[in-house]
Amino acid sequence: MSETNRQWLMCSRPVGMVKESDFELRSSPVPEPGDGQVLVRTRWLALEPAMRGWMEDRPNYMPPVGIGEVMRGMGVGEVVKSKLDGYASGDLVSGMLGWQEWVLGDGGLRKLPEGTDPRLALSTLGITGLTAYFGLLEVGQLKEGDVVVVSGAAGATGSVVGQIAKLKGCRAIGIAGGADKCAWLTDKAGFDAAIDYKNEDVGARLSELCPDGIDVYFDNVGGPILDQALARIARGARIVVCGAISAYNQEETPPGPRNYYRIVAQRGRMEGFVVLDFLPRAAEAVADLAKWVAEGKIAWQVDVQHGFENVPQTLLRLYTGANFGKQLLEL
Amino acid sequence: MSETNRQWLMCSRPVGMVKESDFELRSSPVPEPGDGQVLVRTRWLALEPAMRGWMEDRPNYMPPVGIGEVMRGMGVGEVVKSKLDGYASGDLVSGMLGWQEWVLGDGGLRKLPEGTDPRLALSTLGITGLTAYFGLLEVGQLKEGDVVVVSGAAGATGSVVGQIAKLKGCRAIGIAGGADKCAWLTDKAGFDAAIDYKNEDVGARLSELCPDGIDVYFDNVGGPILDQALARIARGARIVVCGAISAYNQEETPPGPRNYYRIVAQRGRMEGFVVLDFLPRAAEAVADLAKWVAEGKIAWQVDVQHGFENVPQTLLRLYTGANFGKQLLEL
Repeated sequence: MSETNRQWLMCSRPVGMVKESDFELRSSPVPEPGDGQVLVRTRWLALEPAMRGWMEDRPNYMPPVGIGEVMRGMGVGEVVKSKLDGYASGDLVSGMLGWQEWVLGDGGLRKLPEGTDPRLALSTLGITGLTAYFGLLEVGQLKEGDVVVVSGAAGATGSVVGQIAKLKGCRAIGIAGGADKCAWLTDKAGFDAAIDYKNEDVGARLSELCPDGIDVYFDNVGGPILDQALARIARGARIVVCGAISAYNQEETPPGPRNYYRIVAQRGRMEGFVVLDFLPRAAEAVADLAKWVAEGKIAWQVDVQHGFENVPQTLLRLYTGANFGKQLLEL
Repeated sequence: MSETNRQWLMCSRPVGMVKESDFELRSSPVPEPGDGQVLVRTRWLALEPAMRGWMEDRPNYMPPVGIGEVMRGMGVGEVVKSKLDGYASGDLVSGMLGWQEWVLGDGGLRKLPEGTDPRLALSTLGITGLTAYFGLLEVGQLKEGDVVVVSGAAGATGSVVGQIAKLKGCRAIGIAGGADKCAWLTDKAGFDAAIDYKNEDVGARLSELCPDGIDVYFDNVGGPILDQALARIARGARIVVCGAISAYNQEETPPGPRNYYRIVAQRGRMEGFVVLDFLPRAAEAVADLAKWVAEGKIAWQVDVQHGFENVPQTLLRLYTGANFGKQLLEL
């Protein structure tokens, strides 16, 4: 190969808000696959709020990305050379490709079925969809008739959470930032109501919309919104702790939820989870999700940016809330 | 009856630390039992940290005590007159007698079996013991080999938690205030270790004592100690939220646990409970606890104050940590 392989390395651990300068663009030769390997050209990258956590040097559910290493990230690519049985040139694969134009892979890459939309493979039918599915149904132990509130509701995970809740006979209320996102939730995604946290009093609106309390609160944001929800949990509530995007870029860990103690009087449960634990059961979730998408029962939204040079600034969009739907970058 | 009935009424809702002046002593005639009633003379009162919460005018697991009402409280008394089948003069009964010398009761009072020690009936074999038993075994889903940490460990509930953990083949570490309490935990109650939060660095000691993390953290205190424990939970940890005595007397709800988010990477669960939900299963717990006490496998400690006029200041002992073991008052 005469082409060069551009890679984004993490060159420093971010302090406070992650910055473009925490990454460095490097060029190196495109590698040659050995026996049992494939050479993949990256076509799409997915950006996730959790990436900020991967950049920290502290215990987490995956080892931290090392300084000077290619930034970790999911993507979809095309097999260009294969020395691995079962993979052929032209196959689309998904996996942890990293922020690089070319990558060597092995049998850990998942071949996408013919005709798969890469945007769906990286959102509703990928890790994001699985997070919503298992988080709500397994961790949240959803029951028909539950009042479900989800924060970050116009995000990739949150929007699926609310729509699964509706499909399961529950009431779904989403919290999102801005009138456009809220309109999408109620008009396109079928939520029963949406709260615009940038322009409304979240506590007052929750009280109004959930007069008998919240049965399942699916949290993607932490901070004051988590507290407003905790103040209004129903007896036996389940609080699914999925994310805390409001805290990821703060220099010091912010104070925790003042109202956590409501779980005593209300016999509530706050539970954290990591979707990787559910991967052995991915097939059942993907089957359900694919069916719902095909039937038009799950609306999905992706926010596509372009150009490999723009990967770091595309990540930043997640932390300012500039994205609307799953944040992707097409190379 | 020619005697008067002295009663402690709650005369104002406490702001910040509860004060003696939030209560008022009143005298009224001793009441006469009607049909289906018994007249009971209060012999013992039990003081509980949770009483502070009952005095607040906000949603809780029991309605708030009303201003001008007799303060709610568990006690043991002696039946003096009975117009209720199955209860005879001289019977000892336990129940919500309230802070009063005489009280009319009905079939809701529990007759104590012959020979019962009222101090045990109000502590290890009463609500306190049930709280420890169901909180640890059911809410905490204790498994053999778990590393169990309990705060307020020299208190009535905490001391039973650690001892049940030991009986079930677990490692038990208690956090308590002062060298005397800590010595009792390791020397008399068989805890594997005790941490004196008044004189030791709780976080450093927990790291030392739980190198593989905490499997079950039974919390009676909230505040900074809860945070130190959360920072050190093991994969799949259960955090049993029983109390938060550090917060009860603060004028404003203090910040919540900064480290709550550790439950995500560690797949942890924080769960609140109210022991009243387990009362239908009380017999099984009391049978186990009574057997363990009789066999000398559970050490117990009560702190007995005297004189009806001293009830409010006896309650205050709980919030300064002056008590050692279950706080009782003998009339």
